[in-house]
Amino acid sequence: MFITFEGPDGSGKSTQLRRIIRVFERLKIPLLTTREPGGTEIGDQVREILMNMKNRSMKARTEILLFNAARAQLVETVLRPALAAGTIVISDRFADSTLAYQGYGHQTPLEPLRQLLAFATGNLVPDLTLLFDLPAEVGLRRRLSNHDEWNRMDDYDLPFHERVRGGYLALAAEAPRRWVTIDASGDADQVTRTVVRVMIDRGVLPADAGRIPVSEIA
Amino acid sequence: MFITFEGPDGSGKSTQLRRIIRVFERLKIPLLTTREPGGTEIGDQVREILMNMKNRSMKARTEILLFNAARAQLVETVLRPALAAGTIVISDRFADSTLAYQGYGHQTPLEPLRQLLAFATGNLVPDLTLLFDLPAEVGLRRRLSNHDEWNRMDDYDLPFHERVRGGYLALAAEAPRRWVTIDASGDADQVTRTVVRVMIDRGVLPADAGRIPVSEIA
Repeated sequence: MFITFEGPDGSGKSTQLRRIIRVFERLKIPLLTTREPGGTEIGDQVREILMNMKNRSMKARTEILLFNAARAQLVETVLRPALAAGTIVISDRFADSTLAYQGYGHQTPLEPLRQLLAFATGNLVPDLTLLFDLPAEVGLRRRLSNHDEWNRMDDYDLPFHERVRGGYLALAAEAPRRWVTIDASGDADQVTRTVVRVMIDRGVLPADAGRIPVSEIA
Repeated sequence: MFITFEGPDGSGKSTQLRRIIRVFERLKIPLLTTREPGGTEIGDQVREILMNMKNRSMKARTEILLFNAARAQLVETVLRPALAAGTIVISDRFADSTLAYQGYGHQTPLEPLRQLLAFATGNLVPDLTLLFDLPAEVGLRRRLSNHDEWNRMDDYDLPFHERVRGGYLALAAEAPRRWVTIDASGDADQVTRTVVRVMIDRGVLPADAGRIPVSEIA
């Protein structure tokens, strides 16, 4: 079972992932989590290039290809072996991030991107994708107020982030059986309860996961 | 005018390129030369990942995508602007290296590779490609005896390098108007004379380039 968390920057998906990891731990269910870009030794080296503020001259196609290089390494060395062994895998971002950020955000044509993603992933598609949706300016404001590390990827203007959000919503509408859109603009604890409920509904977590108080995993 | 030098490792193409640069200098013809992977600040960072011996776990698709990330950056920031300005450009390796090494060498299917190359290069195809051809074992032996830096890319076995050579020959046969195959197994001075003659024939160099003694550019 391959699950991905997607959403604009500042949507709180990484916080939610940390909480979900604790649910799996409490229930002693094996879980592998990965993060894009990175998650492999080579991917981490690529991540460094992508995140480096001094690489401002990076072109859209270069960025796309670098993201997908890290992804290809992750798929072949980590994801495929884990999934083949029956492990549940949750990835913080995956191929849909490329469509949302580079396709919709940078307005790169989608069809060549989809071909590229098929190549990089060897056609690996998630079984379930949670979209943490919120208005772009809310996400950006949150990141600023959190004093999160500000990196090259954030350094685009608001219309860009609005196109990213719209892209995610379009992708979710295209494949409604795979995607579940979660309102991430409100209270983090409420979002956690929603995530747990979705995972119970989809058979990822057993029903008793719903009885764990959010206070114990927050 | 966009010219590429291709060939197996140890074929002497870099030596030949150095000599040709001197011909252009002598004739005061502006020339831009680039080297793959690399040739841009970001490309050099990618090159470091590709050449690092400790990255032995790198998968074929990862390698392909990294090469093409460096290439996309080179095309957009260096090659296109120079070609638009009418400058003659010679690149030490270009997209055909991916088809030869990753396609034929690693036996990755060619059609997805060609799609990927079209994406990375924005369909930029050389006007002239010189193939420095020689038996794979001769090239490898030369590199060893030259005490050239031995890097991760050389660390494949002989059958791999033989597939690369066969791939180059197949590519040259497919597009005989673009490719000129040069026997690179013999004397370096003779190879230089051939390269200069080809460039005169193709209108890259003026006829008086043929009167420059090889001893003065070697």
